[in-house]
Amino acid sequence: MEKLTVTLGERSYPITIASGLFNDPASFWPLKAGEQVMLVTNETLAPLYLATVRRTLEQAGVHVDQVILPDGEKYKSLPVMDSVFTALLKKPHGRDTTLVALGGGVIGDLTGFAAACYQRGVRFIQVPTTLLSQVDSSVGGKTAVNHPLGKNMIGAFWQPAAVVIDLDCLKTLPRRELSSGLAEVIKYGIILDAPFLGWLEEHIDALLALEPKAMAYCIRRCCELKADVVAADERETGMRALLNLGHTFGHAIETEMGYGNWLHGEAVAAGMVMAARTAQRLGQFSEADVQRIIALLKRAELPVHGPESMAPEAYLPHMMRDKKVIAGELRLVLPLAAGKSEVRAGVARDVVLSAIADCQRA
Amino acid sequence: MEKLTVTLGERSYPITIASGLFNDPASFWPLKAGEQVMLVTNETLAPLYLATVRRTLEQAGVHVDQVILPDGEKYKSLPVMDSVFTALLKKPHGRDTTLVALGGGVIGDLTGFAAACYQRGVRFIQVPTTLLSQVDSSVGGKTAVNHPLGKNMIGAFWQPAAVVIDLDCLKTLPRRELSSGLAEVIKYGIILDAPFLGWLEEHIDALLALEPKAMAYCIRRCCELKADVVAADERETGMRALLNLGHTFGHAIETEMGYGNWLHGEAVAAGMVMAARTAQRLGQFSEADVQRIIALLKRAELPVHGPESMAPEAYLPHMMRDKKVIAGELRLVLPLAAGKSEVRAGVARDVVLSAIADCQRA
Repeated sequence: MEKLTVTLGERSYPITIASGLFNDPASFWPLKAGEQVMLVTNETLAPLYLATVRRTLEQAGVHVDQVILPDGEKYKSLPVMDSVFTALLKKPHGRDTTLVALGGGVIGDLTGFAAACYQRGVRFIQVPTTLLSQVDSSVGGKTAVNHPLGKNMIGAFWQPAAVVIDLDCLKTLPRRELSSGLAEVIKYGIILDAPFLGWLEEHIDALLALEPKAMAYCIRRCCELKADVVAADERETGMRALLNLGHTFGHAIETEMGYGNWLHGEAVAAGMVMAARTAQRLGQFSEADVQRIIALLKRAELPVHGPESMAPEAYLPHMMRDKKVIAGELRLVLPLAAGKSEVRAGVARDVVLSAIADCQRA
Repeated sequence: MEKLTVTLGERSYPITIASGLFNDPASFWPLKAGEQVMLVTNETLAPLYLATVRRTLEQAGVHVDQVILPDGEKYKSLPVMDSVFTALLKKPHGRDTTLVALGGGVIGDLTGFAAACYQRGVRFIQVPTTLLSQVDSSVGGKTAVNHPLGKNMIGAFWQPAAVVIDLDCLKTLPRRELSSGLAEVIKYGIILDAPFLGWLEEHIDALLALEPKAMAYCIRRCCELKADVVAADERETGMRALLNLGHTFGHAIETEMGYGNWLHGEAVAAGMVMAARTAQRLGQFSEADVQRIIALLKRAELPVHGPESMAPEAYLPHMMRDKKVIAGELRLVLPLAAGKSEVRAGVARDVVLSAIADCQRA
């Protein structure tokens, strides 16, 4: 079992990582006998895990209600969140209730935001079931729903009381989604931690094989790295932006191709190579380092260039809508070396276009 | 001009109270030239004040967009708030925008909550136009919308950057709403400040006549009293509950009679007499003090008993849904003396029923 604490003063909370946690009532601390819980999950996960988690909580004397949402990014919306409020008020659940988010990023983001708003804020426990949500949304307290005019545009910073990561969940995760999660894992190595990048090169096959010890360490290290960044910059005014390596390019791919056709991690993987090529063109990143990133992403079964159908010029309009754009100027996260990165403003557009073209050729 | 600071660490903010503020660009500090504002108001107030506020802001070099909502409590809803997000995203407004709430409690609560959620939190300036919102929602950071199953059930704690109270607004306020605001004013005297209660007895006619010096002092003192309570208990875990004097009874009246038939302050006025009679029956409040409260409420043209059609027994089911109920036990705010009050648990139901009946008789 791996355990760490995200340190945020009185809002600090533990992350527990192990196999078999869903069967252990102790996993769901700080829930206590007599307390009330609303379990939020989706139609895909409910048949796999809902009964187990319910039984474990009920054995601990917790009163459990549940709401099962449809599965998919398009249900991460204000009207679907309202249906969670309706479920809460019908019972009714008071200000001392706890929302438990059992699912990936969509369930975690929506349930966390519902917890932030219900009666102006109730307790919330994250139970992320995908590798991506385990290494990403477990830490940072970003919650949100989408608006028809923009992703994650309505939300709150709201920290969970605990994060419970049962490694057994990954056994039912589609292989493509596992790889998609590994893209974010590799990102942590590139931006912040050269030794971890080396460790990933040694253990990428073990991770793809879901070897529990390697996977537990990997998730723990990613959460630790993110926790350090978030502790330093909870509301994303500075270095937290580094976590966006590859995302400005990646969001352009996701948007251009239509959400869901490219998985988030796949788009980020291609985007990280584009960022690396941009850094190389600026003379701050070596060909050897670019090749090292490409090799690792390939071993993780991830794409290393954008869609063939998408010309370099098609990226720019999407990239200019990035939240990091200030006064019409693009700002990019660029690697400086393995384990080191920076946010750079004022990169010329033709450098960006050439870097994207480099990737398509390579 | 009266000015005070609500002290909440780095979220401290100023409240400015005077006539003519809408014509003075300095009122809207910290807004600066070049910044973006979304003015939110309703159909009743727009023809009265929108052009003036817009012109003042534009003279200061601020870019102003506006959204005009329908007027009324029933529009304090998630779908109406979503229309504010749509207006913000259509322009679009970035994370550096400021929402300005020009209106009473409904506009302030909804706009504040929209500011708390838009892109996970943007700046917000309160411009309360009713006496009730000036003395109540200016301080405390409570924002919310209603859900069909409960009032203020979805919301956030979100502090404004500034509160701008232009006394001239009160000239267009219907007399019944002025009295309704005075109910909350009198409440502050009863629960926290005996000298202020005495001052109100001397100045109630000046307040009803909208005498600017008296009104400015009155609003300032209420904001100060509330600010002290909120600074001590921002998230309402303890003494902030005292601000609910009369509200548990009052909400029962509002709900039973249908929202809008009894104004909030009218219901609170009757509720405060019921609380006083309950305290009297418990031997902790004198008949002379009850009569003193009744006399002042009557001079403020407020009701001192509940609706004739509502039997004492009709109050209890509503009162049991109060947010202060813990483990099925009613908790009431009761006066102990002029300027002193407590939260009391375990008051017998027959005492409450008798106290309500006392009011109907008196």
